[in-house]
Amino acid sequence: MNRLAMTAMLLCTPVFSWGGLTQTTVSDGPEYTDGNNLVLPADYREWMFLGSGLGMTYDPAEGVQSTAPQLFTNVFVNPSSYSGFMDTGRWPDRTVFILEFRNSDGEASINRAGRFQTNLVGLEAEVKDSRFPDGWAYFNFGEDGVAPPLTGNVVASCIECHTEHTAVERTFVQFYPTLLEVAREKGTLKPGF
Amino acid sequence: MNRLAMTAMLLCTPVFSWGGLTQTTVSDGPEYTDGNNLVLPADYREWMFLGSGLGMTYDPAEGVQSTAPQLFTNVFVNPSSYSGFMDTGRWPDRTVFILEFRNSDGEASINRAGRFQTNLVGLEAEVKDSRFPDGWAYFNFGEDGVAPPLTGNVVASCIECHTEHTAVERTFVQFYPTLLEVAREKGTLKPGF
Repeated sequence: MNRLAMTAMLLCTPVFSWGGLTQTTVSDGPEYTDGNNLVLPADYREWMFLGSGLGMTYDPAEGVQSTAPQLFTNVFVNPSSYSGFMDTGRWPDRTVFILEFRNSDGEASINRAGRFQTNLVGLEAEVKDSRFPDGWAYFNFGEDGVAPPLTGNVVASCIECHTEHTAVERTFVQFYPTLLEVAREKGTLKPGF
Repeated sequence: MNRLAMTAMLLCTPVFSWGGLTQTTVSDGPEYTDGNNLVLPADYREWMFLGSGLGMTYDPAEGVQSTAPQLFTNVFVNPSSYSGFMDTGRWPDRTVFILEFRNSDGEASINRAGRFQTNLVGLEAEVKDSRFPDGWAYFNFGEDGVAPPLTGNVVASCIECHTEHTAVERTFVQFYPTLLEVAREKGTLKPGF
């Protein structure tokens, strides 16, 4: 599995029914251009930090065979949606998750073991937005900071993985420890979590 | 070196002269009780995220010999001080850094390789505050969320390490990639960085 597909899986959850909850429009939600092309939020580094991983992969073969340098993954969410989740354990409509990939370094400066984060090497997004037929969409940003929604087989694998393996709606809350506690308290975890 | 000393080093930087800069008082700065005992900021997880490491150590021997589980370290700073740094490449008076230690897990849920963050196992702080003779202080929180400033040999090792090995003032900006770029642009990196 290539990095794009793997990482799309890292971000990519089922069409979630909001039942009777009110979907509020949020001010720091997604911005689009030319239809449904997502604009990278300029201030996403100042959004709420959900968690980091190092060298995470969902593919057993890649885990064993990979000789690629291990990447850190940092996940951020827009503040108003974070606030909504803290209140309800669910994601409001117009929630944006940014997944940042960074190289890592080990023996540098004073550090003698372990890894720390260095330069940015990739940016992806998952958006919950009722404007999309599925209610969720996935994006991989290039240099220009604008990305169309993934389509075809790529998004199909996102949707499958984010449907079958996620703890809350289509999001990997099992990897965001502070949110996991909130979802447990609010009773919004899927069965098995 | 025990974890406390090692992690104090992770946070711990020289008495920095602000020269002609104005030191503004910040609203989200440190709160103290019973003199100089620092109160853990209740909302530090909603502060600005600076960077994560996994299994970082500054002690060569520990790096080779340790069989302890690898911990993630997440660093957060109060938003108004972050804003000050983005403008100047320097830290305002009354800046608070929170260093969070979390356990890690590997093969769990859908993940097959690499590590992700789990439960909280430790919290420390570094504060820049002119109320302290040195201008900086270091704290290790216990269960009660209140910590006195470190003293004696422990803080001496903090100060030594944060004087000799830090990129900006007494802070390990070399491990916070977005801030490193800002400090480079603003010309506030120490020689050698």
